Amino acid sequence: MMTQSHDSEIRDLLDGWADACRAKDIDRLMSLYAADIVYFDVVPPLQFTGRDEVRRNFIRWFDQYDGPIGLETRDLTVVTGADVAFANLVVLDSGTRNNGIEGTVAVRATVCCRRSSDQWLITHEHISIPAGWAFSVEGE
Amino acid sequence: MMTQSHDSEIRDLLDGWADACRAKDIDRLMSLYAADIVYFDVVPPLQFTGRDEVRRNFIRWFDQYDGPIGLETRDLTVVTGADVAFANLVVLDSGTRNNGIEGTVAVRATVCCRRSSDQWLITHEHISIPAGWAFSVEGE
Repeated sequence: MMTQSHDSEIRDLLDGWADACRAKDIDRLMSLYAADIVYFDVVPPLQFTGRDEVRRNFIRWFDQYDGPIGLETRDLTVVTGADVAFANLVVLDSGTRNNGIEGTVAVRATVCCRRSSDQWLITHEHISIPAGWAFSVEGE
Repeated sequence: MMTQSHDSEIRDLLDGWADACRAKDIDRLMSLYAADIVYFDVVPPLQFTGRDEVRRNFIRWFDQYDGPIGLETRDLTVVTGADVAFANLVVLDSGTRNNGIEGTVAVRATVCCRRSSDQWLITHEHISIPAGWAFSVEGE
């Protein structure tokens, strides 16, 4: 029963994560991350560490879109234990970039969480596209 | 005590993972992966699923190197629970490619594991380079 409940909690966290990205709600989004977050993003550098770097990077990403970000998730796998969990999924980002280009980009996402004081927080996240697909727009 | 022991077990698993890559020992490497592995690699497609696809992709990678693969790990974080664990690290791959180019590539690695019947197996792995760094050779 406990594991089932934690599975639901992680799915709720991911729903909140996606909603916060769609709405570009930086405070809601950052409330999901631990202070010692290690973040591997689509763009350089190799890693962002700590909430300040991650926050700046999310704002950079939000600002690339003219208006809201369309975000769909698929192929979700969630694995949960008592106090450690991870999820992997594909995320389809869509919308109008500031350069006027409209389209959908598929990225891979791995979200890793720890539970402390009854709260799950993301302590590591890894978002990427395969090399050579550099920001290609997917039709699907 | 249990968590400490699991932490050591995951570090041992990662040492074996790195050793198997260096030696291009495909059977030893594949023994670390669960049957339902979901693998996000540096190269397309978006994901490889199951041991057969992952095995073929590792052999493709091994074959890109003329001789052994030099592999160094750094910036390792390991988080372990009773039966779920994850690790994130930077891996420096070096050696001589078949095209004669020598150099080091830094990739980000996230390795996610489940424990079953007293054995840890990797059920999800995510390896990438930031977009725009497409196989650039790092001097460090």
